[in-house]
Amino acid sequence: MGLLASITRPQDLRKLDQHELEQLAGEIRDFLVASVSRTGGHLGPNLGVVELTIALHRVFDSPRDRIVFDTGHQSYVHKLLTGRQDFTRLRARGGLSGYPSRAESPHDVVENSHASTSLSWADGLARAHQLRGEIDRHVVAVVGDGALTGGMAWEALNNIAAGDRPVIIVVNDNERSYAPTIGGLASHLATLRTTSGYEKFLEWGRGTLRRAGGPGRLAYDTLHGMKKGIKDIVAPQGLFEDLGLKYVGPVDGHDVTAMEHALRRARAYGGPVIVHAITQKGRGYRPALDDDLDHFHAVGVIDPETGEAQASSGSSWTSVFAEEMVAIGAERDDVVGITAAMLAPVGLDAFARAHPDRVFDVGIAEQHAVTAAAGMAAGGLHPVVAVYATFINRAFDQVLMDVALHRAGVTFVLDRAGVTGPDGASHHGMWDMALLRIVPGLRLAAPRDATTLREELREALDVTDAPTVVRFSKGKVPADLPAIARTGGVDVLEGPSWAEGDDVLLVAVGSMVPTCLDVAARLRAQGVGVTVVDPRWVVPLDAALVDLARLHRHVAVVEDGGEAGGVGGALADLLRREGVTADVLTFALPQRFLDHGTRDEVLEEAGLAPQAVSLRIVEAVARLQEVDAPAGTA
Amino acid sequence: MGLLASITRPQDLRKLDQHELEQLAGEIRDFLVASVSRTGGHLGPNLGVVELTIALHRVFDSPRDRIVFDTGHQSYVHKLLTGRQDFTRLRARGGLSGYPSRAESPHDVVENSHASTSLSWADGLARAHQLRGEIDRHVVAVVGDGALTGGMAWEALNNIAAGDRPVIIVVNDNERSYAPTIGGLASHLATLRTTSGYEKFLEWGRGTLRRAGGPGRLAYDTLHGMKKGIKDIVAPQGLFEDLGLKYVGPVDGHDVTAMEHALRRARAYGGPVIVHAITQKGRGYRPALDDDLDHFHAVGVIDPETGEAQASSGSSWTSVFAEEMVAIGAERDDVVGITAAMLAPVGLDAFARAHPDRVFDVGIAEQHAVTAAAGMAAGGLHPVVAVYATFINRAFDQVLMDVALHRAGVTFVLDRAGVTGPDGASHHGMWDMALLRIVPGLRLAAPRDATTLREELREALDVTDAPTVVRFSKGKVPADLPAIARTGGVDVLEGPSWAEGDDVLLVAVGSMVPTCLDVAARLRAQGVGVTVVDPRWVVPLDAALVDLARLHRHVAVVEDGGEAGGVGGALADLLRREGVTADVLTFALPQRFLDHGTRDEVLEEAGLAPQAVSLRIVEAVARLQEVDAPAGTA
Repeated sequence: MGLLASITRPQDLRKLDQHELEQLAGEIRDFLVASVSRTGGHLGPNLGVVELTIALHRVFDSPRDRIVFDTGHQSYVHKLLTGRQDFTRLRARGGLSGYPSRAESPHDVVENSHASTSLSWADGLARAHQLRGEIDRHVVAVVGDGALTGGMAWEALNNIAAGDRPVIIVVNDNERSYAPTIGGLASHLATLRTTSGYEKFLEWGRGTLRRAGGPGRLAYDTLHGMKKGIKDIVAPQGLFEDLGLKYVGPVDGHDVTAMEHALRRARAYGGPVIVHAITQKGRGYRPALDDDLDHFHAVGVIDPETGEAQASSGSSWTSVFAEEMVAIGAERDDVVGITAAMLAPVGLDAFARAHPDRVFDVGIAEQHAVTAAAGMAAGGLHPVVAVYATFINRAFDQVLMDVALHRAGVTFVLDRAGVTGPDGASHHGMWDMALLRIVPGLRLAAPRDATTLREELREALDVTDAPTVVRFSKGKVPADLPAIARTGGVDVLEGPSWAEGDDVLLVAVGSMVPTCLDVAARLRAQGVGVTVVDPRWVVPLDAALVDLARLHRHVAVVEDGGEAGGVGGALADLLRREGVTADVLTFALPQRFLDHGTRDEVLEEAGLAPQAVSLRIVEAVARLQEVDAPAGTA
Repeated sequence: MGLLASITRPQDLRKLDQHELEQLAGEIRDFLVASVSRTGGHLGPNLGVVELTIALHRVFDSPRDRIVFDTGHQSYVHKLLTGRQDFTRLRARGGLSGYPSRAESPHDVVENSHASTSLSWADGLARAHQLRGEIDRHVVAVVGDGALTGGMAWEALNNIAAGDRPVIIVVNDNERSYAPTIGGLASHLATLRTTSGYEKFLEWGRGTLRRAGGPGRLAYDTLHGMKKGIKDIVAPQGLFEDLGLKYVGPVDGHDVTAMEHALRRARAYGGPVIVHAITQKGRGYRPALDDDLDHFHAVGVIDPETGEAQASSGSSWTSVFAEEMVAIGAERDDVVGITAAMLAPVGLDAFARAHPDRVFDVGIAEQHAVTAAAGMAAGGLHPVVAVYATFINRAFDQVLMDVALHRAGVTFVLDRAGVTGPDGASHHGMWDMALLRIVPGLRLAAPRDATTLREELREALDVTDAPTVVRFSKGKVPADLPAIARTGGVDVLEGPSWAEGDDVLLVAVGSMVPTCLDVAARLRAQGVGVTVVDPRWVVPLDAALVDLARLHRHVAVVEDGGEAGGVGGALADLLRREGVTADVLTFALPQRFLDHGTRDEVLEEAGLAPQAVSLRIVEAVARLQEVDAPAGTA
């Protein structure tokens, strides 16, 4: 490639002329399609910000000026322009992160991929610059129209607007969050997009009022005295300007020159200002542009020509949930679905097709999703709030105070729970179990296969006076793993002597069941007797687990959540309080931020591969046998 | 009292004429001042909503129509009008709650007192009504201008505006949240308040444009075609109308007739609508109106004539923190304070007086407070985010993903941690320790007295690469409780044999130290040897605790947080993993929502009074002695 390879740092962009910039944009698009189709990743969003990112790096002086990307997945172009062009292992262990990464580059400031945070980051940075007298530093936040539906963005706008700090907010408006952006804000942005027609009216109006003299002149002055040009009257930028934010736009985000011009105006202004860029997600890539359902937001490995995904077999956890929701929806009128701008990814699309009036997409607004669900429950419905596990963190207070305190029958379905893989630290769903077991009355199920997912979802929907949660992994659901018995609410999966007791009670949480069955085989091969159970509901813990633990010398709990406050610790605590003396071993994710990599890589590094688990258990068994039979008597 | 006593339900209001309504409003004010000055409670907010609440109950048909009070502390008038006039035990055990309470009345819908949630509740209720075909039911949310600075409110507005559901949002605009409302929104509301001057201009403008014909006529029609009357152009209601919300106002919230008129218009509209009521917090009560610092928002027992508080002696935890911040601020330029609309209640007012450029009030916006703090830390400052413990729940994801993931040196100061007392379930700070120990790298201190609060705050501020937390109680700080030794980071408070070991290691968390010293005295009186320690930092747990535990037969942990995921469970877990065989007893709050009452009442009911704690320990000691000396050999 010609130009792209010559760009090793943002300064290299400065010497390019307009023709070369267009060539560079083309090269970047070709690179992204070729590269991301091989590795998977966020394709659509990055194709949409090529010119915008080039313009940013021509106008601003990163890293002295700070560029903060909201949600982070649209930073591929930024990476290419800041010395990172080896995308061969994008999102794979040891390769580039799919998000900004401070470890990769001083040009990366914020690596959190949770939406709507960039304006708060920008305001904090700008306040620090101001207080430290670094008045020549600019802060730029690049935020999608979808992320502006998140409440945090409003909190930040309210603060930024009240100050005089040089915060430049580039609204990357592609009319989509993941799916098309919804809500009043979306309508408002749509109105802004069509303002070019009003520009002419504006000129006419200004002239007319000025010519009128007398009252007309008064009118003009009055309006002007409100610090709003007459343009602002006919084009309702009011939303931003009423808050005190200067507005520049709309600008064609695919015209580098226009973008540069707008950014330079914004930069010169010296205070808070919105730059409204209109872009096209998937720009320049026909398969993405032809797709209404935004499947190219994030892709796996695809054919770069056609956009077709590589064949994969088997059902995903998400698709099983999707099917069961459709079935339940046909049986029960009161069940409704709520999504925070991720209808298809969380599997509510089929339900939405079957019951279009019973699915609510609230925007990237988890807090509202949860509290509105409490309201719906108070109004006689049973809402199913379907979100990625990592995002329920954003609405903990609402789960606690609005749902649980009010004993509302709301079911949370947490997709992508546990280790998710290539999206890294901010996407691993490793917090939910510790977090949610704090909530009084809440019940949480971790199904192990399609059948238990269906069953436990239905059990959750039968609870009318408390929050219920069903959590499952990303990816393929395993073939059904039938139980040989049930005691209390606990499924016994393996273990001929489970009712009499044995060496080890292996408690497998949800998606760790296959691992535990593997572990059990390894233990048996070494002469250790094992019972494998799936508690099904892990919050609260079933009393049957206590009874089972009394019958075994060791209890080992294996889960794919964080160890602090996890199921293992909770069961150990329960057994201690019940006076059960079994030796307890816990296997969980270490309480630190885990890097990207495949699910298996991350689990192995965390000591959750079958070999490592069985080894630790064998050692514990041997240790206890030694105590029984001291060296002298052996 | 004449009229008030005759109102036993909202319908009784309908028969009153305007004169009687005014008389009733006066009676209610007299009642509130007389009653709340005796019991303590939220005085100012309720004095501000007397006429507004009367009008609401005359226009709407509660409980069929649903009235949701945001933040809930302004529901006293509502209680008086819905059959609850015995305020003698307001906020005391067995008496009326200081917030709406579904147990008290079917007229109460939402009892969460966390701000900015009412619009989401309202939208959820309205969606349920719509889906169930209950189209004649209206939902009214009463929300302060301050609560509109919270992001959730924006998320809800965005959803409400996009729909056609009959949600009436009464903005109770008193220009204050707790302190004067800040931010761009506040400026916008201020502009709206002064629109009466524009009314005349409006009439002139409409006439002029109409008379003009031709282009003028075109202008009028164009503007009208935008579905915004010309009034909306000169008065920038744009903020709400741009989102698609009909706006009625501003209305004098102390004019029952005007309020009724506005509410009837809103009701008849049948879709989402904002009613902007201008009220005066503390209306009719001179001491409140004369006070700039909003001390009458919530009061203790006061003299009803003068508003003077009953004398109380001793320093509060808050005031010690306030003093130390001033001292630290003089030494360090990089330390800044952040508050979410509670400058004085969290003790940052003195720091703000000393360093006005170094305190940021971000509005009722905990999420923004936390992420902006991360930004400030990235910009070279060390922010201190001071909030009530219960409110940090609202920003868990930001603590995790913005502060901890980015290794930002941000210190959180959690006031009102543990049992708070009269504010009930939504205010007890019993979640923070379990919640925050999930966060990788976070350190949490629980000081026991003024000296350790000062020390631990300074230790927290020395940590530059991780979140730190200092949590303390509501109320008076005890006299200093000096240590006799320190081992690792653990203070030994009592116990002559601590270094050799003894019967019981009593681990006292923060404000439970006085309780534990009392327990220790009781144990010693029964011949049980005790070591009392204060770990100072309870997240992570100090290795010295493991060493100490090895030297004692029993370990008892006493804390005023919830038992699920608490310090006791964490220490038990640590000891198990370290192979320490000491018998562990944990004393914590039960994992349920605790009612209002005094701190001592709530602690006693939770089994955390000294008698109960010592009894359980003595029983455990006896049990273990029995094991040592079986009955036959005794």
